[in-house]
Amino acid sequence: MRQNLDNWLDAYSARAHNLSVSEVRALFAVVSRPEVVSLAGGMPYVAALPKDLLREAYDAMMKSNGDLAIQYGGGQGDAKLRDQTRELMALEGIRSSVEDIVITTGSQHGLELLSGLFLDKGDVVLAEGPSYVGALGIFRHYQAHVEHVLTDNDGMIPSALESTIKALKAQSRKIKFLYLVPNFANPSGVTLAKARRAKILELCRKNHILVIEDNPYGLLFFDKPVPDALRSMDEEGIVYLGSFSKILAPGFRVGYVLAPPAIRDKLVLANESAILCPSSFSQMMISSYLEHADWKGQVETFRGVYRERRDAALSAMEEHLPQLETTRPDGGFYLWVTLPDGLDSKAMLPLAVKELVAYTPGTAFYGDGTGQNKLRICYSYPTPDRINLGIKRLSTVINLQTELQETFGKKGKK
Amino acid sequence: MRQNLDNWLDAYSARAHNLSVSEVRALFAVVSRPEVVSLAGGMPYVAALPKDLLREAYDAMMKSNGDLAIQYGGGQGDAKLRDQTRELMALEGIRSSVEDIVITTGSQHGLELLSGLFLDKGDVVLAEGPSYVGALGIFRHYQAHVEHVLTDNDGMIPSALESTIKALKAQSRKIKFLYLVPNFANPSGVTLAKARRAKILELCRKNHILVIEDNPYGLLFFDKPVPDALRSMDEEGIVYLGSFSKILAPGFRVGYVLAPPAIRDKLVLANESAILCPSSFSQMMISSYLEHADWKGQVETFRGVYRERRDAALSAMEEHLPQLETTRPDGGFYLWVTLPDGLDSKAMLPLAVKELVAYTPGTAFYGDGTGQNKLRICYSYPTPDRINLGIKRLSTVINLQTELQETFGKKGKK
Repeated sequence: MRQNLDNWLDAYSARAHNLSVSEVRALFAVVSRPEVVSLAGGMPYVAALPKDLLREAYDAMMKSNGDLAIQYGGGQGDAKLRDQTRELMALEGIRSSVEDIVITTGSQHGLELLSGLFLDKGDVVLAEGPSYVGALGIFRHYQAHVEHVLTDNDGMIPSALESTIKALKAQSRKIKFLYLVPNFANPSGVTLAKARRAKILELCRKNHILVIEDNPYGLLFFDKPVPDALRSMDEEGIVYLGSFSKILAPGFRVGYVLAPPAIRDKLVLANESAILCPSSFSQMMISSYLEHADWKGQVETFRGVYRERRDAALSAMEEHLPQLETTRPDGGFYLWVTLPDGLDSKAMLPLAVKELVAYTPGTAFYGDGTGQNKLRICYSYPTPDRINLGIKRLSTVINLQTELQETFGKKGKK
Repeated sequence: MRQNLDNWLDAYSARAHNLSVSEVRALFAVVSRPEVVSLAGGMPYVAALPKDLLREAYDAMMKSNGDLAIQYGGGQGDAKLRDQTRELMALEGIRSSVEDIVITTGSQHGLELLSGLFLDKGDVVLAEGPSYVGALGIFRHYQAHVEHVLTDNDGMIPSALESTIKALKAQSRKIKFLYLVPNFANPSGVTLAKARRAKILELCRKNHILVIEDNPYGLLFFDKPVPDALRSMDEEGIVYLGSFSKILAPGFRVGYVLAPPAIRDKLVLANESAILCPSSFSQMMISSYLEHADWKGQVETFRGVYRERRDAALSAMEEHLPQLETTRPDGGFYLWVTLPDGLDSKAMLPLAVKELVAYTPGTAFYGDGTGQNKLRICYSYPTPDRINLGIKRLSTVINLQTELQETFGKKGKK
């Protein structure tokens, strides 16, 4: 019989002990059961992408570049795809050079490599509160400390950023960068207001803090385009992350990074060290798709799908949980819901799953254990009917919990 | 005008300073000029793969699994592909469970993630001398020290390993693992003899040293199969790395890791942290190819191509450089050539490029600056005629250098 004891426990690196199972990941097993309405994972609705478009992209790629598409490529990524990403970024006001773009294995790997370039043990990363769970996992892995900055319906609050920086400086902490998801943030769904963008940049410039702007959702607006990217206002102080996962499909694992030249140089070396080169096959598929398909029309299709689902989610909240506060996103995938004081979304999750609905507990999106009375609803994947059903089931659980609490008193306040 | 000064020089992590341009990478620009015969890069000859096989794989994949192929997947990789890799490993005597396999973004990323799990600054990695340049880059990035163990035409020498371990232990150095490419090693081309495999394993077991067995070339034998994998003799002390880059194509960036359960668990977490999940699209393409194509027949085709090129390379060495010592590989991509004493392959490279031939200098394959009078010839990519032409051009350079040296005295011995 196989032992499950670890013979190598004495051999791991210090950073290996900072890997932990994410709260989102533990849900994956649950999500796969068809009877459960999953409002948990952040999966795009790729069924809305006509597969003919991919077939055409595949055929065109293999016809013109078959051998190159399956060969090793350069560590910086395919030059043509890099050039094409410039057009995407230009939609949010960014001027860029093809030389300053690095293709990565999803923008997740871009963030991972950048974190490796900057973070030593004990360094501080500033982030929204709440912030993207996948980013928090990376920062933890690099033994960094995440300091959340107060965020409201207009995104990160500049005065809160200022006082956070001041407090950290007073403690002589090393702030390595500010990590931001300015548009339809994961998990809050909020967008950083235009006026705040300039203020946040100014504060970072003044305090010599690099900004990592992560923008996977910006093109998925429902009504009006998002404000111009922070990167459109500053070239030297910002590293910008983009992704094809939400405007095309995540299965290719292709994202991109636009960085100042010195950082870009290091990023290319880190990319080469980690994976030799990004997948030529995935990159050239996307490049061919961008060239041959009406990709802007397809983004419009996705916007329509997600707008309808956002509407379904907000209507269902109104119908079944009118007493709860929720963000009202103008794009992207997520609602951020505040539970009645004293309810614990993590403790409640097994009960929800018993009622055949899943969500992500708020604590997943904080590095400091807060967020107990918050939860994230992801409306991107289920159909509008299923969203309504899921939120109805959720209301059963929440209402029961609220009742119990009112009857027996608030938890933790005995 | 853009500044090329680095505003963030004070912000990088300690490990970021250990990234450096590899000597192989600097050659990529040269290689792309068609008039240069490149015996440098390690590119497989993917033109020998009929593209119809990929088209069939693509069509079958999209027909049965179109939406899954472009969606996020699990962090451990596609279960079906993991199951299929068991068949590949069984060809070298390995019994494995699908649960213990992790799919990675090329085996390079497998090694990168493992290195992150084990290496702290100053730790020691044991490796063949010479060893794979891409592995050395990773170890350097993690601020580890590589200790090369003497290697001859039968691979790593067990007694040399024993004395190396003894010496390091006497210095109280922390040896984290032994990194080995046992079959048709890069760059030496040599294969670890069967009798030595058991001895090396025994030494590692006795000294509680984990073995990382990296085997991208094992199935590309020319005459007879390689000895069974080290992993076939030990399940708890070995992490095994496999790859589809050489038996199919590298552009998919798909490799796999077979690891003891505790290490596997950490590896999955590290994979998720770094990239969320490996590319579903690439994984399912390969899975579909393995299911629908005669992949064993295709490996036989590759063997024939590389056997012919190995023969061409050895004949050309005999014809143009009969005075030089070279390894005589029974598989894989590489010859390892010893120059006359006093010649420096790195210093000679620009002269070779002027003669329109490129190779990789020996120093790239050592972490300690040795290997000056060695060079690697990769015969996998150019046609037999081009190989002959390249080695002929190389002989012009080497013979001139030897002449100069005989006339003016050896360098460094003034």
